[in-house]
Amino acid sequence: MSTTSARGKLIGVGVGPGDPELITLRAARALRQADVIAYFAKAGSPSHSRAIVASHLRAGIIELPLAYPVTTELPKCSAGYRDALEDFYARASTDITAHLNAGRTVAVICEGDPLFYGSYMHLHARLASRFDTEVIAGVTGMSGCWSAAGMPIAQGDDVFTVLPATLPESELTRRLAEANAVVVIKVGQHLAKLRRALKQSGHLSRALYVERGTMAQEKVIPLATKSDDHAPYFAVVLVPGWDRRPGAKEQANTPAIAGGEP
Amino acid sequence: MSTTSARGKLIGVGVGPGDPELITLRAARALRQADVIAYFAKAGSPSHSRAIVASHLRAGIIELPLAYPVTTELPKCSAGYRDALEDFYARASTDITAHLNAGRTVAVICEGDPLFYGSYMHLHARLASRFDTEVIAGVTGMSGCWSAAGMPIAQGDDVFTVLPATLPESELTRRLAEANAVVVIKVGQHLAKLRRALKQSGHLSRALYVERGTMAQEKVIPLATKSDDHAPYFAVVLVPGWDRRPGAKEQANTPAIAGGEP
Repeated sequence: MSTTSARGKLIGVGVGPGDPELITLRAARALRQADVIAYFAKAGSPSHSRAIVASHLRAGIIELPLAYPVTTELPKCSAGYRDALEDFYARASTDITAHLNAGRTVAVICEGDPLFYGSYMHLHARLASRFDTEVIAGVTGMSGCWSAAGMPIAQGDDVFTVLPATLPESELTRRLAEANAVVVIKVGQHLAKLRRALKQSGHLSRALYVERGTMAQEKVIPLATKSDDHAPYFAVVLVPGWDRRPGAKEQANTPAIAGGEP
Repeated sequence: MSTTSARGKLIGVGVGPGDPELITLRAARALRQADVIAYFAKAGSPSHSRAIVASHLRAGIIELPLAYPVTTELPKCSAGYRDALEDFYARASTDITAHLNAGRTVAVICEGDPLFYGSYMHLHARLASRFDTEVIAGVTGMSGCWSAAGMPIAQGDDVFTVLPATLPESELTRRLAEANAVVVIKVGQHLAKLRRALKQSGHLSRALYVERGTMAQEKVIPLATKSDDHAPYFAVVLVPGWDRRPGAKEQANTPAIAGGEP
């Protein structure tokens, strides 16, 4: 591709929820054809998205790690934090621009789906108007989680809502109370608060806790049976709309943690 | 697989939004290994999910079409309609059970993701407690649509909501008004109503209309420029959370219909 065009192409490549087999055929092809692979990682940590696609990288591909700045000393809502991130995305865009101007195709790999709560969109917003751009949709982390749990999440006229656990407790409670089907993301250090919001909105008994869905150390348990409030950042809590529909109770009490013989 | 176990395995296989290259490696493998492939279709119409995976079916695979009953004469909320669907899913489960009891692996292919607004979950709820079951997550139709549009949909602390256009106008308006990022699904004959709800909630100018995302006849336009209210059932309307974030205006006015040189 890069040989037929004066300038390269930017490709946002969704690589799915974690299981390397859950990348798409189109993502695998883009990785085979790209000149440069770029990926986000915390400074000093290995990149999770790179690990997912490791077996698909051809020898000799140029690697461009994009290391998030370490900002633990800055509060997230501060101007300093915002500035550090702005600087980071500006520098990352500059680095990618250099490759694109040299005629190279750059694949930015993204866990889940590139345009759904991902860092890629910060590059896309800066570069898509200036370069040929393609976005390859991916399986989201939340799809991986409810599939791993065997948990039908939404159906029919359900309203489906994704709530970041970072929201204030009062907003979480209010939005949970009026929701049909919910996925709470970014659970991390917010599990105690989330538990209170679920209890107050009447959803605690239906909530399922999922850690590392589709990955080797996958963990799926009813939240009510989880005895502590420790959770990694990427843990999710599922509240299915399914089991509220008429007749659901008689048919299958817990389609939740399914699979296996009775 | 079917030869090592007395009973077969049920696999819900997500086949993605329409582009045959957007199926996952794991879905492709499941299709290669399955003894039986089952798919939903309207009676008398070809199956869309089967068309997506046609190139992956091995010769000699047993095909089990599951034809939805024609119920146009029955109102959707009527007991008659509900009964017809219940009968249909019960019969489909019986047909699949016969194959599973004969030791065959049955792959039920599903557009998008099997457990997200899909028909597969009706089979899953009936069968997962009785047979070995696996669900393979897929790229959702909505991911395909915002990726085709190059439209970042949700980021940071956005609340993301999926609203079926079948909801009453007052509920659509209320939920749109308090939403950050929204995808409206099942647009079909509800576009005029949806347009009023978007206008009243202040979102009409940001809304993007997408038909057949990732497919050959793909269509992406600002809803405000669409001159009629005709829409297929699977059309979606996207309302991005992205462009409300601080600084978004200056950076990229319309990351929306991106791609191509300036």
